[in-house]
Amino acid sequence: MTDDPIRAAIVQLKRLPGVGEKTATRFVYWLLRKPEIATAMAGALSQLEERVMECQYCCNLTTSNPCRLCSIQRDDHVLCVVEEPQDVLAFERSGEYRGRYHVLHGALSPLDGVTPDRLRIRPLLDRLRGDTITEVILATNPTVEGDTTALYLGRLLEATGIRVTRLAHGLSVGTEIEYANAISISRALKDRRELREGKS
Amino acid sequence: MTDDPIRAAIVQLKRLPGVGEKTATRFVYWLLRKPEIATAMAGALSQLEERVMECQYCCNLTTSNPCRLCSIQRDDHVLCVVEEPQDVLAFERSGEYRGRYHVLHGALSPLDGVTPDRLRIRPLLDRLRGDTITEVILATNPTVEGDTTALYLGRLLEATGIRVTRLAHGLSVGTEIEYANAISISRALKDRRELREGKS
Repeated sequence: MTDDPIRAAIVQLKRLPGVGEKTATRFVYWLLRKPEIATAMAGALSQLEERVMECQYCCNLTTSNPCRLCSIQRDDHVLCVVEEPQDVLAFERSGEYRGRYHVLHGALSPLDGVTPDRLRIRPLLDRLRGDTITEVILATNPTVEGDTTALYLGRLLEATGIRVTRLAHGLSVGTEIEYANAISISRALKDRRELREGKS
Repeated sequence: MTDDPIRAAIVQLKRLPGVGEKTATRFVYWLLRKPEIATAMAGALSQLEERVMECQYCCNLTTSNPCRLCSIQRDDHVLCVVEEPQDVLAFERSGEYRGRYHVLHGALSPLDGVTPDRLRIRPLLDRLRGDTITEVILATNPTVEGDTTALYLGRLLEATGIRVTRLAHGLSVGTEIEYANAISISRALKDRRELREGKS
């Protein structure tokens, strides 16, 4: 550790993802011209460790335990399982979902050391023990890790008899087919539906 | 101001140059997974306003006043005038210069509101009042603002009779002429020197 506060600040900011020596140096000298911003930033960052915790039910990050979404009136029968806290925000923005959430804090990736015990799977199983939840939506990302996690959880939940669903994949709304990627097109084809909504 | 510490941290990090909502969000959720880094970063940033000040002589940023470079034995006759504290580091890295420095904290840019009174020009003139300094090197950047600042200072110092020099401009060492920009080539031509070092 250096005693030079300028150097120390550069060393710390360099730890942010995608920030190297040059960017960190630029940040710090910019902050030195606006020291009141550096102080406000320090205050905000120190609050993160102090005040943010995981909700005892959904494992989402929160400042109150249980979190707001676990405290308010929602549909208790449906549970949407997501990888990250940001995913909850995305669902809430869509305004479409009224059930509860469960945040795994990652997706399975054994090569990176993310094994099932690193995710919040045990608290998920604990929540499913009662009779309240009748459907689990596996809303992990359409990536190798996300699909692996969904597959793993799907097998784990088979014994419970709870209905397990997965988000539909296909073309993004607004996408032109010309520019869509091959995997999205192939999933859109595989998951195609009857026009007359006969079959679900 | 929001009471949500996650939102507050995003708002603060968004103020950094080149960092938008998405990058700031990514930084904050990354920090939430490593809260001890957020706290270390907060500590380092809070030191900036607390401990960093301007040297009373050279106006460089320092934690001790006068700064190290003003305190140690150097050539007191030459003064190198630079725009930013980072420029001092660059000169020191070159190991070529043994004189003193003066940091302007910017370059003239009237359209951006950077007028002479916003730069550390008055303390520069105060330093030149004695007989010690015999040469001032105007080491501002080879940009419109840097050149304007050098021109302005050059005129201001005319009356003092002190020798005023400007850094040589031309091709960067290691540059291939094929890829050099037009302005560098034209300055390299204009400032060309005798091969036999007859003329300076």
